[in-house]
Amino acid sequence: MGMRRPFDPVAHELDPNFRLTKFSIGMDCSVTPLRHGGLSLVQTTDFFYPLVDDPYMMGKITCANVLSDLYAMGVTDCDNMLMLLGVSNKLSVKERDVIVPMLMRGFKDCAAEGGSSVTGGQTVLNPWMTIGGVATTVCQPNEFIMPDNAVMGDVLVLTKPLGTQVAVNAYTWLDQPERWNRIKLVVSEDDVRKAYQRAMFSMARLNRTASRLMHKYNGHGATDVTGFGLLGHANNLAKIQKNEVGFVIHNLPVIAKMASISKACGNMFGLLQGQSAETSGGLLICLPREQAAAFCKDIEKQEGYQSWIIGIVEKGNRTARIIDKPRVIEVPAKDRDGELW
Amino acid sequence: MGMRRPFDPVAHELDPNFRLTKFSIGMDCSVTPLRHGGLSLVQTTDFFYPLVDDPYMMGKITCANVLSDLYAMGVTDCDNMLMLLGVSNKLSVKERDVIVPMLMRGFKDCAAEGGSSVTGGQTVLNPWMTIGGVATTVCQPNEFIMPDNAVMGDVLVLTKPLGTQVAVNAYTWLDQPERWNRIKLVVSEDDVRKAYQRAMFSMARLNRTASRLMHKYNGHGATDVTGFGLLGHANNLAKIQKNEVGFVIHNLPVIAKMASISKACGNMFGLLQGQSAETSGGLLICLPREQAAAFCKDIEKQEGYQSWIIGIVEKGNRTARIIDKPRVIEVPAKDRDGELW
Repeated sequence: MGMRRPFDPVAHELDPNFRLTKFSIGMDCSVTPLRHGGLSLVQTTDFFYPLVDDPYMMGKITCANVLSDLYAMGVTDCDNMLMLLGVSNKLSVKERDVIVPMLMRGFKDCAAEGGSSVTGGQTVLNPWMTIGGVATTVCQPNEFIMPDNAVMGDVLVLTKPLGTQVAVNAYTWLDQPERWNRIKLVVSEDDVRKAYQRAMFSMARLNRTASRLMHKYNGHGATDVTGFGLLGHANNLAKIQKNEVGFVIHNLPVIAKMASISKACGNMFGLLQGQSAETSGGLLICLPREQAAAFCKDIEKQEGYQSWIIGIVEKGNRTARIIDKPRVIEVPAKDRDGELW
Repeated sequence: MGMRRPFDPVAHELDPNFRLTKFSIGMDCSVTPLRHGGLSLVQTTDFFYPLVDDPYMMGKITCANVLSDLYAMGVTDCDNMLMLLGVSNKLSVKERDVIVPMLMRGFKDCAAEGGSSVTGGQTVLNPWMTIGGVATTVCQPNEFIMPDNAVMGDVLVLTKPLGTQVAVNAYTWLDQPERWNRIKLVVSEDDVRKAYQRAMFSMARLNRTASRLMHKYNGHGATDVTGFGLLGHANNLAKIQKNEVGFVIHNLPVIAKMASISKACGNMFGLLQGQSAETSGGLLICLPREQAAAFCKDIEKQEGYQSWIIGIVEKGNRTARIIDKPRVIEVPAKDRDGELW
């Protein structure tokens, strides 16, 4: 759950661009104190629509996206998962019998990768394919990190590059000459295919190591970057801080060429304004300045993926902003072994 | 979660008539042992499509239906609920702003009635209105009742009448002359309106008292009657029994006139065959014979609603059947004070 709006039916509203809207108590998960000795129930749900053409990878992405809300709270172990599935009534039985098992297999494999398992769920027929899940864990107080403890002098670390929405859209434009003509001067077909692959694997990657390292390097709070884009989620995280702080973002790590595409499209994505939606994006973490570099080095050593210090926490009124001309860091579409896709 | 199919992607299949299909480990809820001293996580999810025209009541029904899976396991306290909502993109903004808050209010009110609260959820736009939820609780072993302990000599008790699907369908036929003509010889418009009201309130009623009384009167296992109809769920419950037992059903309590409608429609619902889908139906409970009458008396005293002894547990091969000519008990469309709707 990613939205920081209180659960108020009257205030409830839908995001205009079909993107997920969520309600929660101001954090990525709900945290419910239990009757049993100091334990809390930490829980999140998410469902949305497919955005890559490989059902297995889509299952993994969905699961990674659901788990990400737990990881943002510093919860590294998920006790149980449920899967939610709406199967399109426009699929033939044959298509369904191929796609649904692959989706489920991807979801299950990703849950297993996260040390969890899928014990149930619900399936309905629906005009649109819909896929999501529920992640639940029962924690002691030291097992989760409340997100509201940022202090002046902290820095902001981002653990995945931006640009997944641009990449998956650009990929579909390969088959739409009118759209493709708008961007073909700034990117090659090969660039787009590589970016799409990079986005897909990035979305399927768990934020679990990042979550573990938040404990090791004294994270003061985090969120995951999803439907509201980097700035939206940074603002949401700023809003709930206990201290009078503000977030300033200087650097934007972006999947290679995606910034050019966003510009060529007249900023329709708002990528460089931090508005472009991400799916299963990285964690945005407030870390003590002196520990951030070690965090980045550690995660890269463990996983082979870069993280970036993208901004600072200063005195402020609990908002976030991106500076006028942020530095765009082009993140090459390499796999974890340094090979190009 | 109501289906007793193991979570196997290959075996996974959709119910042909658009009705919910669920996967679970053989019970209404998933039960996950936790790392913390003997506690278990008991969890269920459900979502489906609206079937009554009052959004507030629909919210209540949805919540009651989700909670019912916990109650079937003898879990009487739900620690946390999440709400799942797909808002139809065919609604105008004005319609949406009326309907969505009412749905949410109904869901929340029902959760409160069950002693729980809704701390989060997820909303998407979707062609069809979709509504559901997640119910989670953390229990000690004595707080839930495993459903697999039926013994020969037990009787089967049902806590709500059958016929909700027939009632909500017949109600929509009031506006469809061709359909209405098929049943107008056996029911009046007034009969149908009353049955619809009765069905609506029955679906919105919690199975919580029944769940509590399962503890008091030594229930040996239960399930809730939903999408697969009475016989489907009875079979599912029979299938997982530890003892070599079978269930035989003699009596069918049915909302007044719904049996006549089902017959007049050439058994398209399969109501008297136990095949008609129910939503938020009653608990079907295996109780020691000598305690069943006391159970029924107690629940009626507390809630003003009848329960019925509908069958017996005998030696058998873990299946359920309805006898050739079951007794149909016409359940009048009365409210809890005995007044007609």
